[in-house]
Amino acid sequence: MIGRADRLRVHYSLRLARGESAPAKANGIAREQTVEIAPGIVTARRERRTIGRVARVEREGTGRARAAIDYPWRELVSDLPQLLNLLFGNVSMQRGIRVEAIDWPGELLARFPGPRHGVAGVRELLGVRDRPLLAAVLKPIGLSPAELARHAADCALAGIDLLKDDHSLSDQPAAPFRERILAVAELVRRAERRSGARTLYLPNLSGPVDRLAERLEDLREAGIEGAFVAPWIVGLDTMRSLAQSSGLVLLAHPAWSGTLFAPAHGLAPGLVFGDLLRLAGADLVNFPAAGGRFAFGPRDERAVVDRLGARLGAHRASFPMLAGGIDRAKIVRLLPRHGVDTVYLVGGSLYRGGRTLATAAALAECVRSGRPRPD
Amino acid sequence: MIGRADRLRVHYSLRLARGESAPAKANGIAREQTVEIAPGIVTARRERRTIGRVARVEREGTGRARAAIDYPWRELVSDLPQLLNLLFGNVSMQRGIRVEAIDWPGELLARFPGPRHGVAGVRELLGVRDRPLLAAVLKPIGLSPAELARHAADCALAGIDLLKDDHSLSDQPAAPFRERILAVAELVRRAERRSGARTLYLPNLSGPVDRLAERLEDLREAGIEGAFVAPWIVGLDTMRSLAQSSGLVLLAHPAWSGTLFAPAHGLAPGLVFGDLLRLAGADLVNFPAAGGRFAFGPRDERAVVDRLGARLGAHRASFPMLAGGIDRAKIVRLLPRHGVDTVYLVGGSLYRGGRTLATAAALAECVRSGRPRPD
Repeated sequence: MIGRADRLRVHYSLRLARGESAPAKANGIAREQTVEIAPGIVTARRERRTIGRVARVEREGTGRARAAIDYPWRELVSDLPQLLNLLFGNVSMQRGIRVEAIDWPGELLARFPGPRHGVAGVRELLGVRDRPLLAAVLKPIGLSPAELARHAADCALAGIDLLKDDHSLSDQPAAPFRERILAVAELVRRAERRSGARTLYLPNLSGPVDRLAERLEDLREAGIEGAFVAPWIVGLDTMRSLAQSSGLVLLAHPAWSGTLFAPAHGLAPGLVFGDLLRLAGADLVNFPAAGGRFAFGPRDERAVVDRLGARLGAHRASFPMLAGGIDRAKIVRLLPRHGVDTVYLVGGSLYRGGRTLATAAALAECVRSGRPRPD
Repeated sequence: MIGRADRLRVHYSLRLARGESAPAKANGIAREQTVEIAPGIVTARRERRTIGRVARVEREGTGRARAAIDYPWRELVSDLPQLLNLLFGNVSMQRGIRVEAIDWPGELLARFPGPRHGVAGVRELLGVRDRPLLAAVLKPIGLSPAELARHAADCALAGIDLLKDDHSLSDQPAAPFRERILAVAELVRRAERRSGARTLYLPNLSGPVDRLAERLEDLREAGIEGAFVAPWIVGLDTMRSLAQSSGLVLLAHPAWSGTLFAPAHGLAPGLVFGDLLRLAGADLVNFPAAGGRFAFGPRDERAVVDRLGARLGAHRASFPMLAGGIDRAKIVRLLPRHGVDTVYLVGGSLYRGGRTLATAAALAECVRSGRPRPD
């Protein structure tokens, strides 16, 4: 038996092919993800310390089952890439396996950085208590640094709390990285002086990994205190490393994450956007609100918000940032559904009709009031 | 119109929801992956330089379509993370979109490193021409460095060309990274002196990104000339960076890659294991052979082998490394199916019955003969 502190329990939903047995499938996972060798090749004594053990299997109607497997994490999980490998490395290439949730041993949780700032730290930085936050996307790709900076200034003057680059902006000819962030930071600073409020600018660091150090230097030079990456593109461990060493407020962007959410195969959104991004150090987690143009339902939305605020060792809570087709009407519907520790991210709708300042100001008023009337 | 050299053409298969129109879906992708803003918010003139353009849409029976979209890559693709973002960033979170193939502009191809060694370079390093290669996995996790090194020596003495760490081995207590690779490299070197042939050892570099430099130093100290990463865990750009600067022979491991292959959503295996890994600099690409315990069919297998050898700018061909339940019987079946520029990777079956040296020698003989008889 593995002691409680030594075991990592992973909960799965299984979809069974015709003739496939649930216990056999669960045992297959426990073996595939650890020793990855057929039974009887090495001795049971050899395997005992490292192999996963099926703790529970239950059929759930035709062709479905639930299973829980205990893994001896000390022998397996040396680092975050190996945690991902254990969760879904080889079994990703099989079918009908969904990782639903994890029971985390405290000592393992303590090995990951978690959010450096989290909800409390971001609030302190912004000087904002007791209300949801409003965030905006600088876009679209194709604008010059000066044009993006003017949008940024409008947003900052209107009282928007967080401003992020569009995730398509990296280092393209129309708005090269360094030029863009210097221009935006300068106009945001001026706007902050006028408004008296903070607006945190989060540039896109999802560029070449070997230019990250140079771009962090650019951020320092520009006096920028936050940034974002798309961890499912640049690697979750790159985010972990940034959280551990950069001191920045970090936002995780969901690009590429939809690869993890096939209907009966993958990982649960609450685990991906909740536990994993939080452990890797995301202070803010951008993910699709239910009912938008992305395949995300109300239960997914609820699960992510819950997991970002739930107890997770001694780690701080992270801000859920609801995104994807957010406009005033949608904010009005979402506000009563979630607590104050929520961020609403407005993208394209902000630029409709060329009245960015007025639109942003109305949105800011809406979020501040907490109980807005519909339009 | 975008000129031919300026456009990146992406081919999609679409699955349409009830009432969804193929042209609307294609136009949605072209917009989502570029300006990501609803029509009419910024002027058409503004959008023209950066938005994707649907070049073709064809219905294919009920609920299916094919589409091709041209993207102005110079304005969009500043780096490899942005290429991934363009291919499947936000649309990953939608449904029924599969990226099938890409028509690459030559100038874009030239921006990526491609394989430093490739088929030709690996052959030169090994001193092996005109036959397939045989590779073996050092496993299972739980063994000590000395035990793994003894397996490695058996493999090298038996004439195995390439030896890789099991992908679950990183830096666990039973076999810490540095201790393991020093022990294995030493016994492989001794075995090479006895056998007179080269055996290239590829340790697992899929660990913390901020320890990569230190581990590369360990490799240099041990005189090791190759390594592997799981690019879909540590990030494809981490592999690209290694290919560009480390000088190592690089193998890509498929852990986590199954997230990309949902039945009607994701990216085609030929694109993932072929074009993308090759452009990012994989000299060898490990992927599941058809008909094993992974959900991979003969057409997938064929497509990967083809794309790794096809013309792709001036880039070298990469070695396909067929894996997943490979034993002598399977090698016998696979040999006539593929050309000589193929690697067969043997895992667990090598350790059956504790006769690793004899089993490996028989496998090596089988691959060398080129026309083996069944057992």
